[in-house]
Amino acid sequence: EIVAAMERMLAAGGPLTGRHVLVTSGPTHEPIDPVRYIANRSSGKQGHAIAAAAARAGARVTLVSGPVTLPDPPDVDMRRVESARDMLAAVEAALPADVAIFAAAVADWRAADEAPEKMKKDGNAPPPLALTENPDILATIAHRTGGRPRLVIGFAAETQNVVAYAQAKRARKGCDWILANDVSAQSGIPGGVMGGDTNEVHFLTAEGAEAWPPASKTEVAEQLIARIVAALGPLEIQS
Amino acid sequence: EIVAAMERMLAAGGPLTGRHVLVTSGPTHEPIDPVRYIANRSSGKQGHAIAAAAARAGARVTLVSGPVTLPDPPDVDMRRVESARDMLAAVEAALPADVAIFAAAVADWRAADEAPEKMKKDGNAPPPLALTENPDILATIAHRTGGRPRLVIGFAAETQNVVAYAQAKRARKGCDWILANDVSAQSGIPGGVMGGDTNEVHFLTAEGAEAWPPASKTEVAEQLIARIVAALGPLEIQS
Repeated sequence: EIVAAMERMLAAGGPLTGRHVLVTSGPTHEPIDPVRYIANRSSGKQGHAIAAAAARAGARVTLVSGPVTLPDPPDVDMRRVESARDMLAAVEAALPADVAIFAAAVADWRAADEAPEKMKKDGNAPPPLALTENPDILATIAHRTGGRPRLVIGFAAETQNVVAYAQAKRARKGCDWILANDVSAQSGIPGGVMGGDTNEVHFLTAEGAEAWPPASKTEVAEQLIARIVAALGPLEIQS
Repeated sequence: EIVAAMERMLAAGGPLTGRHVLVTSGPTHEPIDPVRYIANRSSGKQGHAIAAAAARAGARVTLVSGPVTLPDPPDVDMRRVESARDMLAAVEAALPADVAIFAAAVADWRAADEAPEKMKKDGNAPPPLALTENPDILATIAHRTGGRPRLVIGFAAETQNVVAYAQAKRARKGCDWILANDVSAQSGIPGGVMGGDTNEVHFLTAEGAEAWPPASKTEVAEQLIARIVAALGPLEIQS
């Protein structure tokens, strides 16, 4: 009976059949020298769960992922990157897309000068590390005038004033929706959000904020995909 | 026949039975704020292989490891840490040991001030990141006057002048042996040393340097354990 149900679904296609969904996931690694880098804490679990849920809903999925230790979700086109600059290039190369979901924890800053050889301790105090801002992938794609995905969705990981910071971020970045969560140790999520299997998000749109109940990252992904399906409506067949 | 041989070995004990071997492995992660950190590239494969080989040789093994994605080697006492300061504390707590092998890629520097909340972009150029030197775990243990392990063994990952830099490091740190390798992209190791399964090391002692042929990290571990067995000699039974 389950097999029969699956066959009916495959024959009918899922609610996102014919759509291209682009997802970013994981951290970025920003090199300081050949052996050192700056990184963000991100397991990639939420981004990978969203890519998997989009594929189950019938979408063609491109998953641009920084370094993670997760298995590839089934039926997605994987693009592996290290740095924020690599990630932006892979995202731009994957367009056009109907929906772009930026779940990666992109490093805001990188070392201003990457040293070609390993930096040595010389007995003196280490020099301060000059930083420079990375490209803002979410804002870059959300502000495109040509070829902007219909839905551009960002994430906000905050440790304080979660909803207020995330609403300001939504406006500033020019994206349609933001999923915001509290990644502080005081979040109340057992084991913490980062690296864990549970997430508690605030879903922010131009209309306001909804607090979603704590749920598995797979459940959060499925809830997001359901909202995307509702927002996109039926596929318009181009004649 | 294999089972019989294993039973004989177990009955007889291995060549390191009665010895305590302390191994560090993996990278350290040095927090900048709750979501960002500085890290070293290190898979932990070489350190974990050494811990496993020491356990197979009959030693009691304590493995102090930074964040890695490897399975725990069988029959070792695992101590998981994040930062260099945590690693030094775990090493000191695990002493006394007959042999200490420092295979971890410890970050030389950490952020001078860890921010309690996530640092925000404010539209200006990011401030330079002030760094401060981490404790030198290898030198600290090698220079102990009381309770120094009989053999203190370090690693040197270099991108240029591999043997010369490593010999200077051996003298400066006060350790007995150094295993040095070339982690540059030009090392000639397919796929690179870092993260790969192959290693090519120079084995440095007070007597000079030996170039070991390229070998699997397990073979390098077994060769090192054989040298340790030879250097320690038979166990002196305390009466």
